[in-house]
Amino acid sequence: MTVSPFDHPLLSGLLGDEEAARYFSADAEIAAMLDFERALAEAEAESGIIGKDAAAAIVAVLSSYKPDTARLRAGVAKDGVIVPELVRQLKAAVGAPHETSVHFGATSQDVVDTGLVLRLRRVIDHLDLLLIENIVRLTALEERFGGRTLTGMTRMQVAIPIKVSDRVAAWRAPLQRHQQRLSQQSRRLLVVQFGGAAGTLEKFGDKGPAVRAALAAKLGLGDAPQWHSQRDALAEFASLLSLITGSLGKFGQDIALMAQAGSEIMLSGGGGSSAMPHKQNPVKAEALVALARFNATQLSGMHQALAHEQERSGAAWTLEWLLLPQMAVATAAALRLAAELAGEIESLGH
Amino acid sequence: MTVSPFDHPLLSGLLGDEEAARYFSADAEIAAMLDFERALAEAEAESGIIGKDAAAAIVAVLSSYKPDTARLRAGVAKDGVIVPELVRQLKAAVGAPHETSVHFGATSQDVVDTGLVLRLRRVIDHLDLLLIENIVRLTALEERFGGRTLTGMTRMQVAIPIKVSDRVAAWRAPLQRHQQRLSQQSRRLLVVQFGGAAGTLEKFGDKGPAVRAALAAKLGLGDAPQWHSQRDALAEFASLLSLITGSLGKFGQDIALMAQAGSEIMLSGGGGSSAMPHKQNPVKAEALVALARFNATQLSGMHQALAHEQERSGAAWTLEWLLLPQMAVATAAALRLAAELAGEIESLGH
Amino acid sequence: MTVSPFDHPLLSGLLGDEEAARYFSADAEIAAMLDFERALAEAEAESGIIGKDAAAAIVAVLSSYKPDTARLRAGVAKDGVIVPELVRQLKAAVGAPHETSVHFGATSQDVVDTGLVLRLRRVIDHLDLLLIENIVRLTALEERFGGRTLTGMTRMQVAIPIKVSDRVAAWRAPLQRHQQRLSQQSRRLLVVQFGGAAGTLEKFGDKGPAVRAALAAKLGLGDAPQWHSQRDALAEFASLLSLITGSLGKFGQDIALMAQAGSEIMLSGGGGSSAMPHKQNPVKAEALVALARFNATQLSGMHQALAHEQERSGAAWTLEWLLLPQMAVATAAALRLAAELAGEIESLGH
Amino acid sequence: MTVSPFDHPLLSGLLGDEEAARYFSADAEIAAMLDFERALAEAEAESGIIGKDAAAAIVAVLSSYKPDTARLRAGVAKDGVIVPELVRQLKAAVGAPHETSVHFGATSQDVVDTGLVLRLRRVIDHLDLLLIENIVRLTALEERFGGRTLTGMTRMQVAIPIKVSDRVAAWRAPLQRHQQRLSQQSRRLLVVQFGGAAGTLEKFGDKGPAVRAALAAKLGLGDAPQWHSQRDALAEFASLLSLITGSLGKFGQDIALMAQAGSEIMLSGGGGSSAMPHKQNPVKAEALVALARFNATQLSGMHQALAHEQERSGAAWTLEWLLLPQMAVATAAALRLAAELAGEIESLGH
Repeated sequence: MTVSPFDHPLLSGLLGDEEAARYFSADAEIAAMLDFERALAEAEAESGIIGKDAAAAIVAVLSSYKPDTARLRAGVAKDGVIVPELVRQLKAAVGAPHETSVHFGATSQDVVDTGLVLRLRRVIDHLDLLLIENIVRLTALEERFGGRTLTGMTRMQVAIPIKVSDRVAAWRAPLQRHQQRLSQQSRRLLVVQFGGAAGTLEKFGDKGPAVRAALAAKLGLGDAPQWHSQRDALAEFASLLSLITGSLGKFGQDIALMAQAGSEIMLSGGGGSSAMPHKQNPVKAEALVALARFNATQLSGMHQALAHEQERSGAAWTLEWLLLPQMAVATAAALRLAAELAGEIESLGH
Repeated sequence: MTVSPFDHPLLSGLLGDEEAARYFSADAEIAAMLDFERALAEAEAESGIIGKDAAAAIVAVLSSYKPDTARLRAGVAKDGVIVPELVRQLKAAVGAPHETSVHFGATSQDVVDTGLVLRLRRVIDHLDLLLIENIVRLTALEERFGGRTLTGMTRMQVAIPIKVSDRVAAWRAPLQRHQQRLSQQSRRLLVVQFGGAAGTLEKFGDKGPAVRAALAAKLGLGDAPQWHSQRDALAEFASLLSLITGSLGKFGQDIALMAQAGSEIMLSGGGGSSAMPHKQNPVKAEALVALARFNATQLSGMHQALAHEQERSGAAWTLEWLLLPQMAVATAAALRLAAELAGEIESLGH
Repeated sequence: MTVSPFDHPLLSGLLGDEEAARYFSADAEIAAMLDFERALAEAEAESGIIGKDAAAAIVAVLSSYKPDTARLRAGVAKDGVIVPELVRQLKAAVGAPHETSVHFGATSQDVVDTGLVLRLRRVIDHLDLLLIENIVRLTALEERFGGRTLTGMTRMQVAIPIKVSDRVAAWRAPLQRHQQRLSQQSRRLLVVQFGGAAGTLEKFGDKGPAVRAALAAKLGLGDAPQWHSQRDALAEFASLLSLITGSLGKFGQDIALMAQAGSEIMLSGGGGSSAMPHKQNPVKAEALVALARFNATQLSGMHQALAHEQERSGAAWTLEWLLLPQMAVATAAALRLAAELAGEIESLGH
Repeated sequence: MTVSPFDHPLLSGLLGDEEAARYFSADAEIAAMLDFERALAEAEAESGIIGKDAAAAIVAVLSSYKPDTARLRAGVAKDGVIVPELVRQLKAAVGAPHETSVHFGATSQDVVDTGLVLRLRRVIDHLDLLLIENIVRLTALEERFGGRTLTGMTRMQVAIPIKVSDRVAAWRAPLQRHQQRLSQQSRRLLVVQFGGAAGTLEKFGDKGPAVRAALAAKLGLGDAPQWHSQRDALAEFASLLSLITGSLGKFGQDIALMAQAGSEIMLSGGGGSSAMPHKQNPVKAEALVALARFNATQLSGMHQALAHEQERSGAAWTLEWLLLPQMAVATAAALRLAAELAGEIESLGH
């Protein structure tokens, strides 16, 4: 099944990004969940919440554990979330007497949200590298062609001559601000979610904060009070994804308009037409516009999901799953395409 | 790769719909494209545009044709659309002397858009059946519990008693209007797209309209002037998809609120929790809300794509691909879930 | 206060529409509400629900009634809706013994929703005339320049020559489909809302449907069961508003792109620049794109409001008020601008 | 004309915010533009670009200048922007020989964008104070009722008991993060826009950066290279506005759900019903949900406007005007309503 172009065997060649998509595969999701369960068992053993032998048994099982995915799928259809069935399977694999120590004091949302954050950390590293690559390529364009003249265009009309460097700077400067934003946001986003059934860590007495801190440390995440019904860091991250694709959409739109006018840019690698062999379509430039408008669309839904009622909203939470992974992949794809497109610019200005 | 929950091996068990998703698979897409090429060859032969032996050769090749999908994927990355490489492969398979008759006078957008309409016809049939099933189930609830009393709730406060039939009618009546809308829209939507390179059927002289009418007839679609840069029928269809999920979202929200209050509804089949075994979460009701908000989000992008510049906009067209298939699957999934949920209502009112 | 450009004393000169805006003024809203109360009193007297002298007293008061708007404003701040305070004032004006017959059996939503529908009827007439005007102007362009040649442009690249009539048809044909849609939808939309406290007309016994039918007839609206929690007709109308502005946005975008290229269009009436006196900015064409993207944005919110919980959702209902009036004015403004822009085209093609 | 509830004489009593709205009035906009022109004249005189007597003449005229607004309105209809006509009027008022020094080297977008930033600085101060007020009020609730018990609710079902402080913390903590975000963003947002006709300050030779720095200093803004086609700081600010209303929407939704359940909250000040005098509708709580969904809707459009083509996009720029002021007022209104609502909570938990 390939409803989304990001998953589509053919369309993802243009619109997808293999590395980013990998972090949102079912395998990566389950692996991140198992990482959580392993770190939890270890953290709880250190704090004396569960026995060291229980933790050892859990870690041993997890080292080679493969879930029954058919039953996971059925579990999602019934429970709305992967975790209850996954924990059921894990407990059965660990068996007596340590099965009661599996997932102790945690809830589905702890596993899903922290599992997401673990993968977003990788996504952020990937986006950061792609931002750098784009900045480098645009800087190279600036160095190579910056002194040449372009026709400045305002309100779709010829204005006055500008330098190529003026326009390239308008493509590059936002990306540098996005680097700064990514760094500022990461401190709010890359933190553990751990709260138990309703966010109170009620099974740990006064040891709750210590267990959470240990769990965070083992996972390499920041420690923070539970945020399961406070989704602002995720919506903020979605906003940044859309800022990035928006800036690249402006770049794509500019390239497409220059390619249309014809004399101020030379591009290699344009796309062919089934009806007109003479054409060189600025396919990547158009895709950048499409991905920008796609993310601007999705962003609205991520902000609708902020109305996350009470201690946990199944509806608002599920809505995030429908939106955020595709936004992240769209962003990585746009950065990849923009870097390629910058590399295909043979000449700018005159 | 499974970025979208609609494609996800686990999450699609809840949020997906197998039949709707099938119409958006790469296989179904290619099959519909080949149906177009076959019908085109036949229509052109009948009109004397290409030879009958050419058409026979093309039809013969198409009867068992399997494209090289790796090369299709590379083609999309380069051309932004599947068709140029698909036609290249088809022409090679047909070979001399008839290869020049393949795809004659058509353009990529003719194949992609008509191929989409062919699949939307199947989707509409599927949605229509699901609408009927929901109406039947809600009518059954009305017959069974309609005379009982419910607490009417306005502005989140107890208002006055109502009948169960009053609330069920508010769930059912919009679905009946959606049936009417689907019928009215289908006449605008289920029409062939055929225009050639820039919409003018310039290769056919005065035979253009006749070839188009024959093509439409062979495909079982309505005949209409080319609409490749007029996307209103698609955006209107997207609006209806969101109207349907919106009405079902109201149903889901009502059920979740009743399940919370507790005494006026009895549901079977609720979802389990990994932390609280006593719970019966109204998972399907929540999913209906999530899918409604998802489609309301996507709809905005489908309307952004109406600004389809000039004779063909790669950017606006690609944006549709990113949005419409998922909206259709979300709608089918919501209808499936709503029918299931209606079937799980053991008691309503008192 | 002029937060919205549609209300702004300066910006509404470009972006607003005086006639459409008038239907959404506080005065027009109150007048429609009073029309409802008058028709209700008359319908109830005819059905014997209230006395004929009571109805006469109410009608007499309404004939010259001016509400205390300062207290209405305070009432909205407290009640979230104008009606409770308006009815309080009306009852005081009617006085004993007939004050208890004012607004009898009705609720705020009956007044607000029917009052909206009464004004939407006028808006629809206005839009219909504007659609006709646009079609007439585009047809005139087609007759005048249709036979000339234009450069067909696909994917932002020169494709093959087309006729001016080919492109103008792509601007005109969607408007004709919008006329058809407006007619089909109006039957669903232009119906009375009358349900009483929770939609059951509980104060009328078996006379409820007769009172409602009489009320509808007096107001010149269709009769229909209460729909206060079923918002599909409003969301469908919003979709059509966005379809209209979307089609006009494509027209605007095409004009702006032609104006940029320069040789295929001559426009009078372009806008001036504070820095570059030589420029003729295609201001109206740009405004069409902005209004199209504005409505495509708002549409999402109107569909979010479909999740209208239980018998009345204050949140979802209020959300509509924040969105629909501006969408209607944006649509009227776009139609006005498009007609003006079509009139400013001095030459097309070559 | 009062199309928007934020401008509406009645509805703004609930949904508006007088102080925020004031910064978006036509008067405030013109005043900010004239501040720009005054500071520009002074900065240019200091740098020797224009004469000191010219600057003195301009400043003198500006000290009591009142534009002809009817002509400004007509100017917007023609030019799409207030500035060309405003500058025309200013030049006429200054007269020979200094009129050529008015607005020297600047363009409309410099005036409009910097004028906006000047007002956003005031808006940000206002939002900051309102955030503090909300945090103080929520902290007071926590101190007063924090130790009591609430029914923790997950997925619309009874979960386990929590403390009142647990839920109040989930309302308060995001607001504190929003304070941090506001501070981080302000450095990127509160900077001068000054670039001249196409962003190159072409009339100033090598003195451009010095004039810009002096202009920024006089206006109390940060200095930065021109950003007229880089709208990321504005879209980021819009994202924050929606994050704020989203967090408050969660608060409102929770209050409405508690008010529905009935026993865990006591509220003063609920709204009345025209049909059911016994009701106390949680009007402010509902309005918070509506404003959250409104801003989440608008946000999408602000990100669509990132595709700001070439050196200046009339379409994308105009789209911002249609969206951002209302988002800002909605945010201020939500903060005001939330603070009031927190003050109306008489009791929480048991």
